[in-house]
Order: sequence, then C-alpha cells, then structure tokens
Amino acid sequence: MTLTQDSPAAVAAMARALELAGRGPSGNPNPQVGCVILDANGETVAEGWHQGAGTPHAEVMAIANLAPEWRNHDNARQLTAVVTLEPCNHTGRTGPCAEAILSAGIGSVIYAVSDTGVASGGGAQRLMDAGVTVSGGLLANEVSHFIGPWLTFARTGRPHVILKWASSLDGRAAANDGTSQWITGPEARADVHVRRSAVDAIVVGTGTALADNPSLTARYPDGTLMLKQPIPVVVGKRSIPADAALHAHPQSPIIFHGTNLDLLLHELGDRGIRTVLVEGGPTLASAFIRAGLVDEVHAYLAPVLLGGSRLALDELGVATIDQAIRLTPFSTTVLGNDVRIIAHPIIAHPAALHHDSTLSPATATKEEN
Amino acid sequence: MTLTQDSPAAVAAMARALELAGRGPSGNPNPQVGCVILDANGETVAEGWHQGAGTPHAEVMAIANLAPEWRNHDNARQLTAVVTLEPCNHTGRTGPCAEAILSAGIGSVIYAVSDTGVASGGGAQRLMDAGVTVSGGLLANEVSHFIGPWLTFARTGRPHVILKWASSLDGRAAANDGTSQWITGPEARADVHVRRSAVDAIVVGTGTALADNPSLTARYPDGTLMLKQPIPVVVGKRSIPADAALHAHPQSPIIFHGTNLDLLLHELGDRGIRTVLVEGGPTLASAFIRAGLVDEVHAYLAPVLLGGSRLALDELGVATIDQAIRLTPFSTTVLGNDVRIIAHPIIAHPAALHHDSTLSPATATKEEN
Repeated sequence: MTLTQDSPAAVAAMARALELAGRGPSGNPNPQVGCVILDANGETVAEGWHQGAGTPHAEVMAIANLAPEWRNHDNARQLTAVVTLEPCNHTGRTGPCAEAILSAGIGSVIYAVSDTGVASGGGAQRLMDAGVTVSGGLLANEVSHFIGPWLTFARTGRPHVILKWASSLDGRAAANDGTSQWITGPEARADVHVRRSAVDAIVVGTGTALADNPSLTARYPDGTLMLKQPIPVVVGKRSIPADAALHAHPQSPIIFHGTNLDLLLHELGDRGIRTVLVEGGPTLASAFIRAGLVDEVHAYLAPVLLGGSRLALDELGVATIDQAIRLTPFSTTVLGNDVRIIAHPIIAHPAALHHDSTLSPATATKEEN
Repeated sequence: MTLTQDSPAAVAAMARALELAGRGPSGNPNPQVGCVILDANGETVAEGWHQGAGTPHAEVMAIANLAPEWRNHDNARQLTAVVTLEPCNHTGRTGPCAEAILSAGIGSVIYAVSDTGVASGGGAQRLMDAGVTVSGGLLANEVSHFIGPWLTFARTGRPHVILKWASSLDGRAAANDGTSQWITGPEARADVHVRRSAVDAIVVGTGTALADNPSLTARYPDGTLMLKQPIPVVVGKRSIPADAALHAHPQSPIIFHGTNLDLLLHELGDRGIRTVLVEGGPTLASAFIRAGLVDEVHAYLAPVLLGGSRLALDELGVATIDQAIRLTPFSTTVLGNDVRIIAHPIIAHPAALHHDSTLSPATATKEEN
C-alpha cells in the first residue's frame, strides 16, 4: 500500500513536518524544512529537520534516523517521505536530497511546496524519472506562509515584501485633517511592533517620514525597545531633516533617493535583507502594489467609519473589474476590537497554485496496490 | 440565596429565554420575548414566551406555568425570572408584566435589554420600588441584535435601518470604470438575497437605480423569486424610466422624491415597514450615516484590491479622528472567499450600553444572603 496525500496519516505527518521545520534556525540562506518518514500503515518511523547552513537537509537527517530494518530497498520501498519542501536536486555544501532518497530506496515522496530555485529545483522530476511516486501541494498554503521569505527570494531574487496598513472598515487611514491616532487599538498596535521586530527592514515613503516623523522602532507597549530592531528605510525624492526621529533609531537608516522599487528591493537584498515591511503611506503602498512587488498584505481593520479622502490605498492601476488584484482568502484574527486580515496577491504566489496538483503516477500506483 | 446575573445558571437561562423568544412570531407590533423562571438552585421551574399580539406576555405565560408549590409568596420569593426584555409597565391588550411579577411574589428579575418605549418602559424601576431585586444587561448584545427592529422603533418611532455594502479589502465598491460584477462571490451574494427577503423594504438612490437598473428582488441562486419580497424604494430627485427593472418587482415600488431621510423613514414606518435594507449607492449610504440613521452595518469584504475612486462610502462629515463614527466590535462570518462583517454604530444603540450595568440593589442583597 502506498499512502496518498489525502490520507489523514499524510496530513498529520505534514503538520508534524512543519512543526519540525520550526525547530531549525529561521532566516537566510536556507529554508526551514521538516521531514517525517512513514511506513505503509502511516506510522512514523523517522523524523528530521534542517538545522542550518552546512548541516544535513531534513530528508538526509530523517533517513539517517531510520532503524536498521529499513536499511534495505525491499523494506524501504513501502516508506513514504513527507517533507515540507520539494527535495532539492543540487549539490551545495551537502548532496542533493533527491539522490539521498533514491539511494535509501524510499518508494514514495509527498511534499508541500515546490522548490522554485533555478539551481535547486527539479527534485520531484528527478525522483519520478527514477520511479518514485511523488505528489506535491499538501498543506501548501500553510507551508508557503511559513517559509514565504525564502520562497520569494528563490523565485525572484529579492526580499519578501509585507504591505501593512491600518484602516477604518471603509478603508480610510486617517480622518480628513490627517489625524489617525488612534484608529486601531492597543492590541493591534502591539501586534504591529512584534511584526516589525520579525522583519529585517521597515520601509516608508518620504511623505510619511516628514508628516508623521516616525521612529520606526519595534517597541513593547511600555515604550521600551525590543531586542531585534528592523533597519529603517525611507524611499522618495524629498530630503529628511537631520533631526528626524528615525535618525535616533538603533539601526542607521537607509535613505533611498528614487522611485524604482525593484531597484530598491535588489539593493536591500544585496545587503542581506530578506524581509521588508512596507508601512506606507498610501502613495508608497499603492506603488508597491502597482509594481507587483507585494507578497503579503496585512490589513488591520478597526470598528470605525471615517469617510473622506485619506485612503489607505489610492490608485492601483485597476481600470476595470477584470483587472482586480485578487488575493488568497483572508486569514482573519481578532485583536482587541480590531481584526487583522492577512492575504497574498494570487499572482505573486505561484507555489500556492500547486495545491491539489499531483505530479506523479500516484493514482495508477494506488490502483495497482 | 439570590441568583446573580453572572452565575452560569443565569447565563444559561437567558440563552434559553432567547431561544424561547424565537418561538414567537417575528415582526410588529410586539417584540419576541422569552422568560425562564429559576429556583434558588438555578433549576428551571417554568418557561414562557410571547406568542403574538393579544396573547399573554412571556413573563405571564411562565408564571401561569408555575407548579402549585410556587403559588405562595413565601416560596416564590426565592424565584428568579430571567427575561430577554425588561418587563413592561403598561396595560395594553394584556396587563403589565411588572404587576404580574409582583403579584406572583417573585423575588428577583434578570433581564437582557431595557424597554425604551415611552409607554411600556419603567418596569425595572417599578419592580425595584416594590422591593424586587432587578438587574439588566445579561446577553444584552445578543438579545439587542435579535429584536433590533423592535428596539429601534420603540426608541425612535422609525424603521430599523441596515446599511449593506460589498467592497474590496481597500473599501472600493467598483473599479474605476464602474464595473463591479463580481467583487464578492456567490455565497456572499446568496446571503444578501436571504437578507433582502427578511426585511420589509430595500432602499436605493436614484443614481444606483439609473446606473445599475436593479430588480431589487430577493432571489434564490437559480434566479427564482423567494416567497417574501421586500418593497423596493427609490430615493432622490431624478426620475426613473417606466421601463426600469424595478417596475417588474412583485411589490410596487415606492418612489420618494426628496432627500429628507428622516421624513422618508417615518413615511415608511407609517406604512407598517419596520426593517429597511439600504443597498446604496455610496451617496445614499453616506447620507444615511451622516444623518445618524443607520442601526446596523453589514459589510461584505472580498479578497481583492481595486484602488481608485469608486468608494463604498464617500464623505461622512468626519473632519478629525475624534469625530470618528465608532462601531461595536465586528461580528465576522466567512462566506466562501469573502467575509461578512456586522457591526452597530455605537451612538445608535443605547440599549447595548446597558450591558454589565446593574440597576438594582443586587449587590447589597447578595451580601446580606
């Protein structure tokens, strides 16, 4: 019997693999990956996860953890490796995982998201060509979200961009006179600071820097600084005064004079920045969307109506409804009286489209068994 | 021992009373009310609900259902009547409930929402003056929502107004060229039709009537008409052509030439209309909000970004953040890929403010016992 990816055992194993992945160090250059090896009854026989650059990949660690009884191809053929990322196909500091799976004789592989890296991709094809049953897409959305920055970099070579805004239910970021303190409540604001601390850089436009004079630090509710601080980045053509609050930031600010956001992101990427939080204002936020450079949207909606002209987003280049920028379904979280909505522009996440796809002769194999 | 309204038994009894209330007929002129009578141990000894105009009120029915052992004041004093609406204080086709409770000798009353009617209100005070322990506000939000139209009419003498819009996450109701089919998905649209069938009238502005030529019927997904159809109402100064789709509505449309929304609502109230669904467009929706005539907001948010100038709401008269129109916390429901958010403008719902308030000497009584 070969396990299929819609079996409860496979789903549970992938959830466990994601949990294992979280044990590894986050950030660049390698993704966090977990692997669970199941026998034909869906029982776990080995686990592994990637512990950081230069150490074995998750699949290799899991294979090393197999008991001696599984170390022959006759027995190993009934095993299924459940892994959060498509097994890699290239030799870096460690050998390719696809080859490790083949030499272990494992008969079946179920993975979550495709490896879209030019050098590392193609592992699924390699395995299928060698007769392994392979299917992808199980828990793809969940895993994509977890290793989003790595996937974005593998696909585009630029940092992962999270666009955040806070607005009234009717989409306004401020009242007509520009006042906005406070639309959202303390719980939502605390959540934003946690997010700030989790990214490598915060980007604002010069308009926001001049109008709001933000400190762009990640702070606890009592105002003290969090340990990890994002690099503040200001984008635009206007100059920022020497006494601006962001000059007191623990990290020296990057001032990008210009409007080429693609160039900006590649510059930030070259400095090792892998995650960027765009906090506005509306002009910059809209420019990122128009350029197709937003990977995640985080909208904090407050139970308030404002009306008027101060919109969280302005012109997005959508002339007619067929050009609407479609998002994945909302993930909503209640924060005090506010709601945080997370979604991803669909075009920017081809990996998610693999969900439910099957790249393997699994169906035929299943019927033969 | 007197039960307090924060006891689990009282909460459970109020939830049961709300369920019982639902057994009565909905709509005017009387509210749906339920009543549960508990003994000192929190055990239910009688139940009742209002079965429609001219029949006994919920409290009177529950009292009539009491077993003979409770028909003396010595025993009845330990009873608590848990009722969804403040007991009435006036004599209509039936006697006042406050007097019925007093003559039964019931020692304690817990209610959900206050009766704000000029003629019927004051029951809690009457009971307290006679020595009954009274507290209000238990499950007030839930009960307020259930009998919202009745409460609105009792408070204001006009129909209950639900403002509905569908928008992108960034608050747009259409793309720049006016196209909007479809922003929300079939589940959300089906939900709107169910809502249409539940109200007495749908109101749109002449701009929407001319631009979209809507039928304003309540339909099943296959296009067939639901049994109960709302009366279509068009508001504004422009005239509607004789071949407009709404003239084919099973209910003859009401054409209100003018912009005085308060007058409109009172005219509709005079025709027996108790619930109104305002479907737009943005000009009319915003005018209802500016006039303080919105009792519920139903926003359907789709996972899409549009940007541009076609906003679901336009100018609300909010100049600065302190004038923001605050809403109750969102009630969110996932409908397909969309999210429906229901909230109430806080100023329009004084009844909800009674939540957690205690109008009685309950604390003192509790300590004495």
